[in-house]
Amino acid sequence: MTRRSVRAATLTAPRRYEVREYPWPAPAPGCVVVKVELSGICGTDKHTYLGYTTQYAGTVPREIPFPIIQGHETVGTVAAIGGDGRYSDFEGTPLREGDRVVVGANVVCGRCYYCTHDFPYFLCENMTDYGNNMTAAIPPHLFGGWAEHMYIVPGSFLLRVPDELPSEIAVLTEVMAVTVGLDRAKQISAVPSEPFLFDDTVVVLGAGPLGVCFAMKARMLGAGTIVAIDLSEYRLAMAKRLGVDHTLNAQHSSVADRIAFVRDLTHGRGADVVVECAGVPQAVPEGLDLLRPGGLLVEAGNFSDLGDVSINPHRHLCSKNIRIFGVGGEEPVSYGPSVRQMLRYVRHYPALREFVSHRYRLDDVEAAVERSIAPDSMKVVIDPWL
Amino acid sequence: MTRRSVRAATLTAPRRYEVREYPWPAPAPGCVVVKVELSGICGTDKHTYLGYTTQYAGTVPREIPFPIIQGHETVGTVAAIGGDGRYSDFEGTPLREGDRVVVGANVVCGRCYYCTHDFPYFLCENMTDYGNNMTAAIPPHLFGGWAEHMYIVPGSFLLRVPDELPSEIAVLTEVMAVTVGLDRAKQISAVPSEPFLFDDTVVVLGAGPLGVCFAMKARMLGAGTIVAIDLSEYRLAMAKRLGVDHTLNAQHSSVADRIAFVRDLTHGRGADVVVECAGVPQAVPEGLDLLRPGGLLVEAGNFSDLGDVSINPHRHLCSKNIRIFGVGGEEPVSYGPSVRQMLRYVRHYPALREFVSHRYRLDDVEAAVERSIAPDSMKVVIDPWL
Amino acid sequence: MTRRSVRAATLTAPRRYEVREYPWPAPAPGCVVVKVELSGICGTDKHTYLGYTTQYAGTVPREIPFPIIQGHETVGTVAAIGGDGRYSDFEGTPLREGDRVVVGANVVCGRCYYCTHDFPYFLCENMTDYGNNMTAAIPPHLFGGWAEHMYIVPGSFLLRVPDELPSEIAVLTEVMAVTVGLDRAKQISAVPSEPFLFDDTVVVLGAGPLGVCFAMKARMLGAGTIVAIDLSEYRLAMAKRLGVDHTLNAQHSSVADRIAFVRDLTHGRGADVVVECAGVPQAVPEGLDLLRPGGLLVEAGNFSDLGDVSINPHRHLCSKNIRIFGVGGEEPVSYGPSVRQMLRYVRHYPALREFVSHRYRLDDVEAAVERSIAPDSMKVVIDPWL
Amino acid sequence: MTRRSVRAATLTAPRRYEVREYPWPAPAPGCVVVKVELSGICGTDKHTYLGYTTQYAGTVPREIPFPIIQGHETVGTVAAIGGDGRYSDFEGTPLREGDRVVVGANVVCGRCYYCTHDFPYFLCENMTDYGNNMTAAIPPHLFGGWAEHMYIVPGSFLLRVPDELPSEIAVLTEVMAVTVGLDRAKQISAVPSEPFLFDDTVVVLGAGPLGVCFAMKARMLGAGTIVAIDLSEYRLAMAKRLGVDHTLNAQHSSVADRIAFVRDLTHGRGADVVVECAGVPQAVPEGLDLLRPGGLLVEAGNFSDLGDVSINPHRHLCSKNIRIFGVGGEEPVSYGPSVRQMLRYVRHYPALREFVSHRYRLDDVEAAVERSIAPDSMKVVIDPWL
Repeated sequence: MTRRSVRAATLTAPRRYEVREYPWPAPAPGCVVVKVELSGICGTDKHTYLGYTTQYAGTVPREIPFPIIQGHETVGTVAAIGGDGRYSDFEGTPLREGDRVVVGANVVCGRCYYCTHDFPYFLCENMTDYGNNMTAAIPPHLFGGWAEHMYIVPGSFLLRVPDELPSEIAVLTEVMAVTVGLDRAKQISAVPSEPFLFDDTVVVLGAGPLGVCFAMKARMLGAGTIVAIDLSEYRLAMAKRLGVDHTLNAQHSSVADRIAFVRDLTHGRGADVVVECAGVPQAVPEGLDLLRPGGLLVEAGNFSDLGDVSINPHRHLCSKNIRIFGVGGEEPVSYGPSVRQMLRYVRHYPALREFVSHRYRLDDVEAAVERSIAPDSMKVVIDPWL
Repeated sequence: MTRRSVRAATLTAPRRYEVREYPWPAPAPGCVVVKVELSGICGTDKHTYLGYTTQYAGTVPREIPFPIIQGHETVGTVAAIGGDGRYSDFEGTPLREGDRVVVGANVVCGRCYYCTHDFPYFLCENMTDYGNNMTAAIPPHLFGGWAEHMYIVPGSFLLRVPDELPSEIAVLTEVMAVTVGLDRAKQISAVPSEPFLFDDTVVVLGAGPLGVCFAMKARMLGAGTIVAIDLSEYRLAMAKRLGVDHTLNAQHSSVADRIAFVRDLTHGRGADVVVECAGVPQAVPEGLDLLRPGGLLVEAGNFSDLGDVSINPHRHLCSKNIRIFGVGGEEPVSYGPSVRQMLRYVRHYPALREFVSHRYRLDDVEAAVERSIAPDSMKVVIDPWL
Repeated sequence: MTRRSVRAATLTAPRRYEVREYPWPAPAPGCVVVKVELSGICGTDKHTYLGYTTQYAGTVPREIPFPIIQGHETVGTVAAIGGDGRYSDFEGTPLREGDRVVVGANVVCGRCYYCTHDFPYFLCENMTDYGNNMTAAIPPHLFGGWAEHMYIVPGSFLLRVPDELPSEIAVLTEVMAVTVGLDRAKQISAVPSEPFLFDDTVVVLGAGPLGVCFAMKARMLGAGTIVAIDLSEYRLAMAKRLGVDHTLNAQHSSVADRIAFVRDLTHGRGADVVVECAGVPQAVPEGLDLLRPGGLLVEAGNFSDLGDVSINPHRHLCSKNIRIFGVGGEEPVSYGPSVRQMLRYVRHYPALREFVSHRYRLDDVEAAVERSIAPDSMKVVIDPWL
Repeated sequence: MTRRSVRAATLTAPRRYEVREYPWPAPAPGCVVVKVELSGICGTDKHTYLGYTTQYAGTVPREIPFPIIQGHETVGTVAAIGGDGRYSDFEGTPLREGDRVVVGANVVCGRCYYCTHDFPYFLCENMTDYGNNMTAAIPPHLFGGWAEHMYIVPGSFLLRVPDELPSEIAVLTEVMAVTVGLDRAKQISAVPSEPFLFDDTVVVLGAGPLGVCFAMKARMLGAGTIVAIDLSEYRLAMAKRLGVDHTLNAQHSSVADRIAFVRDLTHGRGADVVVECAGVPQAVPEGLDLLRPGGLLVEAGNFSDLGDVSINPHRHLCSKNIRIFGVGGEEPVSYGPSVRQMLRYVRHYPALREFVSHRYRLDDVEAAVERSIAPDSMKVVIDPWL
């Protein structure tokens, strides 16, 4: 078989995409080439595109090494395996050419203090992000999913996708994996009253892809009443079809309205858990106000720096006996469970097949990113073979 | 025995104390009269005195029902037991007249949602606070510790004090009991890297009585390096004699200095745990900046409302994967352990006998409160028999 | 309205039932009379009937005070409220005559060491069990659910049933509430690998009512593959219709077969969680052998003493790094969540409406108990108005 | 510098030691040669010597590849670093020749299911144990601490020892690190009553080196009353000097005596925590009988297979609502905290300097092992330069 060159959408600077051609990358030992089927657009991708390149603050300072090929939410098939052709997925399943896989978004060093001391892997001091901090200037170039093929370096992980799971659901795996923060939050309870508990009332601020994945995860883990709040009716409608009980449009309500709504649902007490996925600083004090005493705020939205906000330590934290739990990313151990549980979920919530709302060609990647920012979209993906 | 009347310092309005005489209160069935030995001045007492009467915000709104007799950190002896004379302490030990006891600061209703659903008891919707929300206008009047005798209502709890423990240590029990927040924080770990862990570096902001009790508790629970930060050299010197390794004077250092100091101690990473006991809003963002990624802020200081403060959700919470744990008060189950462990602690840290820095007569209660606000004091107590 | 007398199945000694008539019990202040709709037969009832009256060993020794009226899994309607007619359910909802309620199975003293020290309520030293340790010899007699009416003493709790929930599901609430042990197990994780985690493989030993409730609870809380093992095809078939993925008949398989089956499902590692509800001692070592290293055994079945069993501390506990979690009963806080989540569950698993397999009249209570022991039954209930 | 050959005690078969000479091993890149100062005798070493070679059952089956050089509790100095001479310790501190270090006992593969899924590292499927499963038949031979020099392979970890800590304490680091099981147990609490909690009563069964290290760890973490039970007065006397409050000689008491003793200390309830370090199967049911309802058994002693034992699932597990926590080994993250906290501990408990009770020459290794089995010893160490 003669290999032709590989096309990839390349971000050469903020707001500047070019589709470039790269040579086919023969995989070195320990490496894999994946033929991309679908690759999603993440909130981080939008921020990088818009020039908000302050990310991972407080942990690993880094600069975006333009040009880059974005895309870290990728499903594809194994096209070639380097070395002796043996390669196992993250759970030990041997992989062969043609196997469908999800690509792990990050590669950790395994040697820094955080790696050796059992920290969540996104705190690695030398973390490599596909689609984000690997430059396309250096061969083999193809370090992102918005391309026909993607190059997998040593230390990465792949996960075999069950045959029954359609790729338009498998492409959600990385987003779903971020909701491991809710699993962790469920484990931090010190008294039976501490959330996140069975049948707890959960409010999700922001019903974009991450917020809806958190809502689904809350449902999977035994939440009671789930409320989603967003500016987009389109997204709220999808949230409702995916297991959310109540929706509130933030354009047609005040903060006071929303507090009153949640208190009415909870005998005047407030939500047990608020998951902040709106990604704006003001959502933090609103989330704290929506909570009951002793409640839990999961802060997953402000992944890029969009500014400061004012809180009241007395009312919001100390007297209210509140817990806050910052979620900076996903964990590799969450990929397999995410894949398998989405397969269970779609049986009861068939709308999960429609979570991917738009598909774009490589040549239309700018339109795709703009669409992902617009309120009338859920997950927007790149299909390089369209 | 003929009972004479009982003298009590009475706060008739903010900044107005009078020593009043009340009739001896014969105890009803289920009630006890305690002869006060020592009763401490708490931060809440200072705030009430100064007129900051917004407390317990977000939980139970309440007004101070002047006139009140303050004092909820009390050690004394059982003077009379109502009814059949049988009364057991919180741990089931039968009490007799003459037994030395610590008085539990609060009485809960046992029937509200929070009481029946295993919440920490300070979230009770109908909580009665000795020395704070029980008026002295109604018989038997003596609902606070700054008096010769104190009246114990049904549902209260007393704790027998071991004979070996001097009263000037036993009077610290209630403050020490508040540090149960650190026990709870120790239980919330979801991964081995999550604080509060064995040998963790702990920074205490504010070295007043509560801050130093938290530092001692951190030491008791296996902390590694402990740093205390305060404006008062007097308090920092006491902190050092009680188990703190390093002290930093906040008057002679900038926030940047303090961050640099803590990073130097921790290979550049930051503290594992910060306990905020300074009680000023600005201490919250400073605490968050002092933490390592994935660190824990215990917020115990802003018990009264002293205003808002600005934080950065991206840098302080989300990307840093931070945990915040608000501590609104103590739990009854923490009294016995506090008493017994202070008895162990004083063997290795004899300075604990000097934690009470000043004693005042009932007639000098205003001077006592002013002294407790001054930087050259630790715990100031009222001794009604001086 | 003239009240007639009340009929109740009365166990006068092991294996001896009589239907007796008792006078209508006018409720005292703080008390309620509930008109029984359905009342289930629990494993404990069977054991008491058979004369295995050693229960709660190691906690509260007690004797069965024959005659008794059994039945502690009861749904009914409020018939009369004592005193001023005001009464709130466990979550604060005011109750009126005619409201449908589930009756809490136990009443705790609130004063013993276990009650005051935050222990699960079934460790109360003075616990009152409806249907078990309250004699029918003393007025008002009606302390069990296998009767037309039941008398509710002070300190009990009732829970309002949502109108949409059929009584044949509501009657399962107490059994479902016992599965709070799995919630607690979910909270005990110290490292991300410790079960019970999202997508974990769970094996339930014993597919009677308790085992199937645990299986449903595991599904509600995000389990992955669930396996049920039992001797009865009838019960296994029901388990499968209620969310279990695989069933194994213990009559047609050896322990080695079952270990091999579970290892095949789990890449050779073993189950993450085993819930022991078979109620025979030998199930404990089998459960330990079915687990992967670091796995969790929830021991909920040996509630009555059926003898000893041999384990290997080296292989079963130490080297395998195993966790065992004994579950001695339910908690009141678990009733409301159980009711609400069964209402959610029946939407996806309509077979829940058939969980009650047989209904019997008061006069046929002995046949009912024998039926509940037979393998071709799930939950058997008494309907006093049949 | 000319390197001479290296002497090492070599176990060629159970009960057969020879001191052999091996060539000086020049370190390859990523490798280190450590000059041994002291190397301890562990319980596992005794069992291997006696021929009990079934270890790690249920996890990794393995055979002892005789001849081996035992010794995995080693302190020494860096003699040579391979490659470019750069090497960092486990916490990131750069090491140089002459630096004193503790040697991590195990090397994990980093690639198996257990390694990639956040399991405690002793569950690695391909674990390499210094002093246990690395043969001395293959160069560079020196894979154990009972030698003049030891060879450190890639993937190992070393930990720099603080200058103030004497080597006779540093040599205890690995044993102390095993007590991380108690840290983990402290994190598993789901309700405030669940041990291991502040001021809990802890009973240690077996006062050998591991048991006394657990007792010290319990003290470091805030235990209340600590009781040690052993057959050896010698060991009990040392336990008392190291922080244990009460000792019981198991030779002069029955199980019933011991249960009565512990109940007397605990208001009739039983111990909150029992740590089983006696290493005999019968200690497991005794430990369960010593516990209060809801108590915790830490099972750390039956690391080698010494047979089965009978328990009562009803009384010991289910009705008593018990927790069991198997501890199969230590974690690397526990080495640094162990070193630093022993340095704190010796200030208050100077007897820690006498924990090493006997030192032996390489030529007397058989006598050393026999001594370590005898009741009148604590930690016995090999000093290859005596």
